[in-house]
Amino acid sequence: MNKDALLQLLAEVQRGMVSPEAAQQRLAQLPFEDTGFAKIDHHRSLRAGMPEVVFAAGKTPAQAAEIFSRIAKNGVNALATHVDEVAFTAIHALCPAAEYHPLARVVTLRQTQTESRGHIAVVCAGTSDIPIAEEAALTAELFGSKVTRIHDVGVAGLHRLLAQSEILKSADVIVVCAGMEGALPSVVGGLVAVPVIAVPTSVGYGASFAGAAALLGMLNSCSPNVTVVNIDNGFGAGYVATLIARAGFID
Amino acid sequence: MNKDALLQLLAEVQRGMVSPEAAQQRLAQLPFEDTGFAKIDHHRSLRAGMPEVVFAAGKTPAQAAEIFSRIAKNGVNALATHVDEVAFTAIHALCPAAEYHPLARVVTLRQTQTESRGHIAVVCAGTSDIPIAEEAALTAELFGSKVTRIHDVGVAGLHRLLAQSEILKSADVIVVCAGMEGALPSVVGGLVAVPVIAVPTSVGYGASFAGAAALLGMLNSCSPNVTVVNIDNGFGAGYVATLIARAGFID
Amino acid sequence: MNKDALLQLLAEVQRGMVSPEAAQQRLAQLPFEDTGFAKIDHHRSLRAGMPEVVFAAGKTPAQAAEIFSRIAKNGVNALATHVDEVAFTAIHALCPAAEYHPLARVVTLRQTQTESRGHIAVVCAGTSDIPIAEEAALTAELFGSKVTRIHDVGVAGLHRLLAQSEILKSADVIVVCAGMEGALPSVVGGLVAVPVIAVPTSVGYGASFAGAAALLGMLNSCSPNVTVVNIDNGFGAGYVATLIARAGFID
Amino acid sequence: MNKDALLQLLAEVQRGMVSPEAAQQRLAQLPFEDTGFAKIDHHRSLRAGMPEVVFAAGKTPAQAAEIFSRIAKNGVNALATHVDEVAFTAIHALCPAAEYHPLARVVTLRQTQTESRGHIAVVCAGTSDIPIAEEAALTAELFGSKVTRIHDVGVAGLHRLLAQSEILKSADVIVVCAGMEGALPSVVGGLVAVPVIAVPTSVGYGASFAGAAALLGMLNSCSPNVTVVNIDNGFGAGYVATLIARAGFID
Amino acid sequence: MNKDALLQLLAEVQRGMVSPEAAQQRLAQLPFEDTGFAKIDHHRSLRAGMPEVVFAAGKTPAQAAEIFSRIAKNGVNALATHVDEVAFTAIHALCPAAEYHPLARVVTLRQTQTESRGHIAVVCAGTSDIPIAEEAALTAELFGSKVTRIHDVGVAGLHRLLAQSEILKSADVIVVCAGMEGALPSVVGGLVAVPVIAVPTSVGYGASFAGAAALLGMLNSCSPNVTVVNIDNGFGAGYVATLIARAGFID
Amino acid sequence: MNKDALLQLLAEVQRGMVSPEAAQQRLAQLPFEDTGFAKIDHHRSLRAGMPEVVFAAGKTPAQAAEIFSRIAKNGVNALATHVDEVAFTAIHALCPAAEYHPLARVVTLRQTQTESRGHIAVVCAGTSDIPIAEEAALTAELFGSKVTRIHDVGVAGLHRLLAQSEILKSADVIVVCAGMEGALPSVVGGLVAVPVIAVPTSVGYGASFAGAAALLGMLNSCSPNVTVVNIDNGFGAGYVATLIARAGFID
Amino acid sequence: MNKDALLQLLAEVQRGMVSPEAAQQRLAQLPFEDTGFAKIDHHRSLRAGMPEVVFAAGKTPAQAAEIFSRIAKNGVNALATHVDEVAFTAIHALCPAAEYHPLARVVTLRQTQTESRGHIAVVCAGTSDIPIAEEAALTAELFGSKVTRIHDVGVAGLHRLLAQSEILKSADVIVVCAGMEGALPSVVGGLVAVPVIAVPTSVGYGASFAGAAALLGMLNSCSPNVTVVNIDNGFGAGYVATLIARAGFID
Amino acid sequence: MNKDALLQLLAEVQRGMVSPEAAQQRLAQLPFEDTGFAKIDHHRSLRAGMPEVVFAAGKTPAQAAEIFSRIAKNGVNALATHVDEVAFTAIHALCPAAEYHPLARVVTLRQTQTESRGHIAVVCAGTSDIPIAEEAALTAELFGSKVTRIHDVGVAGLHRLLAQSEILKSADVIVVCAGMEGALPSVVGGLVAVPVIAVPTSVGYGASFAGAAALLGMLNSCSPNVTVVNIDNGFGAGYVATLIARAGFID
Repeated sequence: MNKDALLQLLAEVQRGMVSPEAAQQRLAQLPFEDTGFAKIDHHRSLRAGMPEVVFAAGKTPAQAAEIFSRIAKNGVNALATHVDEVAFTAIHALCPAAEYHPLARVVTLRQTQTESRGHIAVVCAGTSDIPIAEEAALTAELFGSKVTRIHDVGVAGLHRLLAQSEILKSADVIVVCAGMEGALPSVVGGLVAVPVIAVPTSVGYGASFAGAAALLGMLNSCSPNVTVVNIDNGFGAGYVATLIARAGFID
Repeated sequence: MNKDALLQLLAEVQRGMVSPEAAQQRLAQLPFEDTGFAKIDHHRSLRAGMPEVVFAAGKTPAQAAEIFSRIAKNGVNALATHVDEVAFTAIHALCPAAEYHPLARVVTLRQTQTESRGHIAVVCAGTSDIPIAEEAALTAELFGSKVTRIHDVGVAGLHRLLAQSEILKSADVIVVCAGMEGALPSVVGGLVAVPVIAVPTSVGYGASFAGAAALLGMLNSCSPNVTVVNIDNGFGAGYVATLIARAGFID
Repeated sequence: MNKDALLQLLAEVQRGMVSPEAAQQRLAQLPFEDTGFAKIDHHRSLRAGMPEVVFAAGKTPAQAAEIFSRIAKNGVNALATHVDEVAFTAIHALCPAAEYHPLARVVTLRQTQTESRGHIAVVCAGTSDIPIAEEAALTAELFGSKVTRIHDVGVAGLHRLLAQSEILKSADVIVVCAGMEGALPSVVGGLVAVPVIAVPTSVGYGASFAGAAALLGMLNSCSPNVTVVNIDNGFGAGYVATLIARAGFID
Repeated sequence: MNKDALLQLLAEVQRGMVSPEAAQQRLAQLPFEDTGFAKIDHHRSLRAGMPEVVFAAGKTPAQAAEIFSRIAKNGVNALATHVDEVAFTAIHALCPAAEYHPLARVVTLRQTQTESRGHIAVVCAGTSDIPIAEEAALTAELFGSKVTRIHDVGVAGLHRLLAQSEILKSADVIVVCAGMEGALPSVVGGLVAVPVIAVPTSVGYGASFAGAAALLGMLNSCSPNVTVVNIDNGFGAGYVATLIARAGFID
Repeated sequence: MNKDALLQLLAEVQRGMVSPEAAQQRLAQLPFEDTGFAKIDHHRSLRAGMPEVVFAAGKTPAQAAEIFSRIAKNGVNALATHVDEVAFTAIHALCPAAEYHPLARVVTLRQTQTESRGHIAVVCAGTSDIPIAEEAALTAELFGSKVTRIHDVGVAGLHRLLAQSEILKSADVIVVCAGMEGALPSVVGGLVAVPVIAVPTSVGYGASFAGAAALLGMLNSCSPNVTVVNIDNGFGAGYVATLIARAGFID
Repeated sequence: MNKDALLQLLAEVQRGMVSPEAAQQRLAQLPFEDTGFAKIDHHRSLRAGMPEVVFAAGKTPAQAAEIFSRIAKNGVNALATHVDEVAFTAIHALCPAAEYHPLARVVTLRQTQTESRGHIAVVCAGTSDIPIAEEAALTAELFGSKVTRIHDVGVAGLHRLLAQSEILKSADVIVVCAGMEGALPSVVGGLVAVPVIAVPTSVGYGASFAGAAALLGMLNSCSPNVTVVNIDNGFGAGYVATLIARAGFID
Repeated sequence: MNKDALLQLLAEVQRGMVSPEAAQQRLAQLPFEDTGFAKIDHHRSLRAGMPEVVFAAGKTPAQAAEIFSRIAKNGVNALATHVDEVAFTAIHALCPAAEYHPLARVVTLRQTQTESRGHIAVVCAGTSDIPIAEEAALTAELFGSKVTRIHDVGVAGLHRLLAQSEILKSADVIVVCAGMEGALPSVVGGLVAVPVIAVPTSVGYGASFAGAAALLGMLNSCSPNVTVVNIDNGFGAGYVATLIARAGFID
Repeated sequence: MNKDALLQLLAEVQRGMVSPEAAQQRLAQLPFEDTGFAKIDHHRSLRAGMPEVVFAAGKTPAQAAEIFSRIAKNGVNALATHVDEVAFTAIHALCPAAEYHPLARVVTLRQTQTESRGHIAVVCAGTSDIPIAEEAALTAELFGSKVTRIHDVGVAGLHRLLAQSEILKSADVIVVCAGMEGALPSVVGGLVAVPVIAVPTSVGYGASFAGAAALLGMLNSCSPNVTVVNIDNGFGAGYVATLIARAGFID
C-alpha cells in the first residue's frame, strides 16, 4: 500500500464508505513492505540509481538468469557477481545486452547512464589480486564512480607505490586489495587522508589460511582510516566506496 | 625543511653562497618528514583540524603524559584512548585542561573550535556496548562531527530499532557497535542508504570468543554498505565515520 | 532375553527346575539389549511413528541401499539423507517406492500415514539456503508435521521478513536456516514466543569459514528462545522441531 | 498508538475533524513500537507470564539494580543472571524481596504465582557443572516449570545415569550440562524420545579450550533430538526448555 | 538390589511366595547400578587396588574435603589432583594422614600397601615441566608402579637424553612431558620399543597457545608408539602408564 | 659395530695388530647406526617380529613399491598404509604375495608366522568409521595380535554397546574409532579396566571440522584410561595396542 | 635522478640557468623510484647477482611466461616457483633455455655464472618433504650457493640424522624441511652452531592441519638458532639461506 | 672423554694395562656428552664466546638464581630472560655483578669482553614494542654484536622509516619487532638486501589475538629475505641475528 492507496482509504473513511473499524483492520494487516519499508528498496535501486545485484554463487544458472532478467526488465543497471561461464551463458540467453568480465567473474548490464560522481582509486598488491580488484572496480563504475586502477604495488617494493602517491592523494576514497600479509592498506592509509576500504584476498598459501592472515592484518591496521570487508569481497568494497565517494556530491 | 626553506637554500646556491656539492649533501640528508612526507601529518592534524591521538595502552603513565602534553603544546585538539585512572592522573598533572571520560576510557583536550560538519549516528545493541560506542562518539565529536547516540536497540527487539529509523535515515554515516552475534549492523545496513561502520565488541561469553563471533558475523554481512573495524575499536570507527561524514562539506 | 524368556526362567525357578542361585547367575549375565534398552528403539521408530533414518554419507551405494530396504521391510516410513544420484539409484532398485528430492539430497519412503500434528515454519535467509531448509522441511513432513516454507527473508531487507510475521506467529516452532552472518534466527526469535531452531549453513565465502561464522552468531543469539544444531544439519532441525511441535498433541 | 487511539483517529477522519492528508501524515510517523511490534513484549512478559530478564554482566551494580527494580514495579516475576555479590547488594537495596542464588549467580524475584506446567529434568555430568545446571533450573522454575535435578551422572560411569532412566523418561524435555568432552547429551538423547537441550560448560582444562571441546561435541551429536546453546548458557537452556515443556498445556 | 536381595527374591519365587510375573515386574524396574554396572567401580577401586581420585578444580574446599574423606573411610588409597593450599587445609582437617605435594598440586593418602609391579620412566623436557611430570609420577607410584624420574632432557641438547638411554630402555612404559614444540616424545619413541604416553604441557609463550602447539606436535608424531593425553594431564598419563606397566604381571 | 666387533678391535689393539691411533680413528668414524642406535631397528623389525611399515601417501607408486619390495626381501612381514589402487598395482608387480585391503587402503605381506599374543577389541561407532577401524585391526593382526571387531555401537543407542560388554571386558586393550562427537571412548573407558586407545575419525560434516571435534572430545575424556592418536590414525592405534597387549606375554 | 643528475641541476642553478623556483618544482615532482628507491632492485637483481623471481601461482600461463621472458631478456638468472606443466610449456615456448624441475615445480634459467660462495645443507625429515626441500635447494644453487642434500632423517630414527652430523657441522647455514610434528629443526638446531631455517611442510594428515602443527612446533623451538618461514616456502628458505651463507664472503 | 683421553685408554690397552673387556665396558658406558655431543655445548658457550642462557619463566626464584650462579662460576657471560623483580633479587643475592634491565625483563652478566663483530639494527614499530626489541638488543650486545636501536617507525607513517634507510642499509642483519598487523618486516625487507628477522609482538587488542595476527602477517611476507621467530621472542631474534652478523668475521 503506497501513499496514494493510503490516502484513498482515508478518503473513503471520510466519506463514510469505510467504517473506522474496517479501516483499522486493514491498516493492521498491511504488509510492511507496501508502506514504509519498501521505500528502502526504491531508495537504493531506483532513486539512488544503484543497480540491483545478484549473488550468483549457490544458485543454478537458470535461477541466476531468471532473477537477473527480472531486474533487467525494470530498466535499471544490473550486476551479478560470482558468475561462471555456464551461468553467464544462461544470463546472456535472456539478456543479450549483458556483458561478461571473466577475470572478475562479474556480469554487468548498463541500461541507464549515471553521471560520474566521485573518484575511487582501486589498488592491488600483486598481479594475483587483480580479479578481486576488478570486481571492485567494475562495481564502482557501474554505480557511477570514476575509477583509477593501480596494480602491483606491494609493500616489498615501496618505490612502486610511492610513484603513485599523487594519484592516490587525488582520490576521494581508496580500495586496497591484498593477499598474503595484507600490509598494503596500512601503508596506503598512512599516505592519504581519505577513507581506505581494505579487501583481504585469498591469494597466498600455507599460513595465509585462505586469506585469514591478510584479514587479521587489515583489522589490526595502525592507520586509523582503514575499514575492512570480507575476504575476496571486491563487490562490497566497490559498493561502499561509491557511497563514500558520492557523498561530496549528493545529499 | 619546508618549501620556503628549500627555496632559500636554492637561492643561496644561485648566489654562490652555497656550493652545489654542499647543497646536494644537505638535500641528501634531509629527513623525509621535513619535505614530502611530513605533509601527511600536517594534512591530518593541522589542516584537517583533526586531533593527534595517543594510544595509551602499553605505555607507562609517564610516557603517555609526556606524549600527550607535547601534542597539547601545538595548540591542536588531542585525544588519548585506552587510558586508565592512573594514566589520566599523569596526563592531568601536565595538562590540567584535559578531560577524562571514564566509561570510554578516553581523554580529550579541546583547544580549537571546529564547526560541526556531518552527522553521525552511533548505535549500540546493548547497554554493555556503550563504552565502545562512547569511544566512537567522543572521537567523532572531537573531530568536529555532530553525533546522535542511540543505545540498546538490539535485534531481539526490532521495534526498539525501528522506532529510531527516522534518525537513522538522517545520518550521513552510521557507527554500529554490537557484541554477541553482532547482527545489528546487517539490520541497520538494510534500513539506510549510507555507509555503516560496524564495530564488534567483546561483550558476551562462551562462544563469543571475546568478540570473534561478532567480528565474523559483521564481515559476512549481507548488507553491502557495511565495513568493519577491529574488535572494540570505537576510536577507528569514529575516525573513519568523521572522514566520510565531512566528505559532503570539504574537498 | 525377552519378557517371555524371563517369565519362563522364573516359572522354572518356581517349579524348582532351576535353583535361585543358577537363576541369579543367568540374570547377571543377560545382555541388556534383550530386556530393557531395546524398547528405546521401539519407542522411537514404531510407537512414536517416527521413520528410521539412514545417514548415507560415507557409505557405499550398496550399503545405503541395503540398510534402507531393511528398514522399508518393517513397513515404517524411512528417510535417507546426504544421498547422491548414484546412491539413490541403488536404493531405488531395491525400493521402487522411494522418492528422491535432489535439491535436499534426501530420499523419503512413506508407508504409513501419520495425521498431521503441529505446525512448523521453515524459514531461510537466502535462495542458497533452500537445500538445507528443504532437508528440514521434508524431514518434518515425513514425521507428521505440517510445514510452511518461507524463503529469502534475510535481515538486510527486514520488510520481506516482517510481511511474514502473521505466519511466523502461527507456528508451534520455527526452523531458521541462514549462512553468512547467520543473523536471521535472532531477529525471528525476537518476533515470536515459540522455540526457534537455528541451522547455520555453509553458504558464504571467505570469513564465513564454511559456516563457522553463522554458527558462532547463532550460539551467541541475544534472543533466548534460540537453540542451534550443526552446520547444514537440516535433518536434525526438522527432527527436533517435530518433537516440539507434537508436544501439544500427544503424551 | 494503540488500537483505541487508532480507532479514535479514524473516527475523527470519519467525522471530518481530521483530513485524510493529516491522518496519513500522522500514521506515517507513528513509532512502530506503539502499534504492532510492542505486542511482542506483552506477549512474552505479561500474557505468557514469563519474567523479564536482566543480563547483569558488563553493567554497573547501579545500572543492574535500576533496571531490575523498574521491572519489579510491573509486578511480574524477574530474573537477573551473571550477578556477583556487589551487584546483588545493589539490587537488594531497591528490591528487598529479591533472592540471591550464589552458586548460580542468579537473582530471582517471584511476584506472581504460575501454576506448574511441564516437567523438565536438568542433568549435569559432574559436580563442577552444577552452577550452570542451577542457572537453568532456577530459570525454568521461575518460568513455571517443574524441575528435577540430576547431578553427577557423567558418561565414564554409565550405571549412575542408567539408574535415573525412569526419571529421565518422565520428563517433557531435558537440559543436559556437561564440560570436558561433552558426551552426556548424546547418551541421554539416545535414552529418551523428547528434546534434549545441551549446554556445554567451561569446566575442564587444556584442550577443553574453555568449553569449545564440549560445544563441538554437542553440535556433532549423533542423537538427532539434541540442540545446543552457548557455552555456560544455563539461562537460555532453562528458557527454551520451559517453552517446550509448556507446549503440551497452552496454545 | 544387590546379589543377596536378588537371591532372596528368587528364593521367594521358588517357595511360591512371589509369582514369576510379579518377580519379572520387579526385575524390570531394578536400578541398573544395583546389579550389573556397579561392578565396574569395584573392579577399578577395590579389586584392582587402584585408588579413587578426586578432581578438586571447580569444587569448593568443603566439597573436595568431604568427597576425599568419604573415599578415605573405605580404607583404599586416595588421590586428589588440582588441589591448592586452601583445599588441602580442608582435606587435612578431615584426613590428617593425607599428604600434600605442592609442586604437583596433588594430595595422596596411602592406606594399603601395593607391591610394586612394572617400571615407568617419567621424562620431562625442561625444568618448567616438572610439576606435570610429578603429577604423573605420584599417580603412578600411588597406583603401585615403580617410577624413575628423568628431568631436563629436551631435544635441543640430545646428549642429555642419549645419556639416559639405558634407563629408558629398561622401562615398561614411558611418560614424556614437554611444552613448547613438544618434540621429545617423538625422539624418545624412536629410542625405545615400549609405549610412550605423551603429555603436552602449557609451558611456553606466544605461539605455544597454552600447550596447543605441543599437543598438535605430539598427535602428529612420526613414532608409531606414541599416544597422547590432554594438555597438562599428568594424572591421566600416570594412570594409563600404570595400567600398561602392570599388564606384564596380572591378568 | 656390535659388542663382539668392538671387543675384537680392542683385542687387536692389545696384540699390537692395530695401533691406538688407528683404533681411535675407526672408533671416531663409526656411523652411529652401526653400534648403538641401529639396535632399535633390529629390536623393532626383526627381534620383536614387527613388520616394517611404509606410509605410502605422498610417495609415487614407484617409490612406494621399491621401498616395500626392499623390506619384503628381508623376509619380514610388511605393511603399507594410505595405499590407493595405483600404488598397489605397482607394489603387486614387485611383490605378488602382497595383499590389498581396499576399505582400509592397506597392503599386507605376511612372510613369517607370529603366534597370537594378546587380545585387542577394535570398536567403531558407526559404519562410516569402519575403514579406520579396519586399518587398526589389520595392523594389529599382522603384528601378531588376536583382534575382535565390534562395529556400529555408537552412544546414541547404548544397548548396542552394552550387549558387547562381555567381549569388551575380555580384551587386553581396546581401540575405539569414532567421528562426530567422539564420545564412544569415554563410555567404553568407563566400562572396562584396561587401556583404551581412542582414534578420532574425520567422519562427520559442518562443525566436526574434519575430525577436530572428535579429537578434542577424546582428549578431554573423563575416563582416565583413554589416550588418543591422530585423526584417522588407525595404524598408530593398532601398533600401540599390540605393544600393550603383548606386554602380558613377553618381557 | 641520481647523484650526478642532482649535482648538474644544482650547478645549473648556480650558473643561473635554472631558477630556484624551477629547481624546487623539479625536485618536488621527482618520482621516488628515479632517485633512491629504485636502487633497491638493482642491488638485489643486478649487483648482487641474484635472479629475479616469478611466483607463478594465480597467474595465467601467458602472464607467467611473459614476465619470465621479460626478465630473461635482462641476461640475469631467473627463477619461477609454483609452476605446473602447462605454465612451463608457455614459458618454454618463449625461453627455450628454461629448465623445468617437476618435483619442486620450479623453472630455472641460468644465464650468468656465479662462483659458489657458502655451503648450505638442505635437510628433510621424510621422503614426502623432498619437493619442498628441492625448491629450497634449487633456489640456493641458482643464487650461487653450494648445496648438500640430506633426505629422510626424521627424529623417530635419530641414528640416521646423527650419522650425518659431520656434514651438518660443515655447513654455513642449514635449511630443515619437515611436516607432521616438525621436530627436526629443534634437533638439528641443537647439533650445530649456525643458523637453521625451518620450513614447515604440509605433509601429514588429520591434526597436522595442512602444516599448521609443524609450523607451531617450529615457532616454539627450544633451539635458539631456529627461525621459521611459511608452510611449504622452500623458496624463501633457500633465498635467506643464501643471504646468510654468502655473508662470510662479500661486503 | 676427549680425543686425548681416548688415545690414552687405547694406549693402555696396547700396553696391557687395561684389558679389552674393561676398555669395552668403559667405552660403552661413556655418557655421550663426554665424547661427541658435549662438543656442541663447548662450541656454543666457550669457544664461540656465547653466554649461557636461563629461561626464568616457570622457575622459582631460587631455581633461577641457582642455575644462573652455576653458569656464572664458569666465567662466561650469562643471560636470563623473562625475569621479574623477585627473581632478580634472588639472582642478585648470589651474583652481585648481575645487571637487571626491567623494561626487557632481562638479566645480563658480562664477565668476558668480546670484540664487537657485525652490526645489527633492531627496529620496532611502536613504543609498546620496545620491551621485546630491547630483549633482542641486549641479547645481541651481550653476544658481541654492535646494535643500533630504531624505535617507532611503524608503516602508517612511512617517512619516519624512510628517514632511517641509510642506517638500515648499513646493517648486516635487521631485527624487526611489530605487533598489530605486523607489516613492518615486509616493508623493511623490501628496503634492504640482508636477512630480516621478524619478531611478532603481542601488542594490540581484539583481533590481534595476542600476536597471532602479526605472526601470520610476517609468515606471509612478500619480502623473501624475512624469517620469523615466536611471538615476543626478542631473545631468539637477537641470538640468530648475532649468528648471522658474525658470519662475515669468523668461520
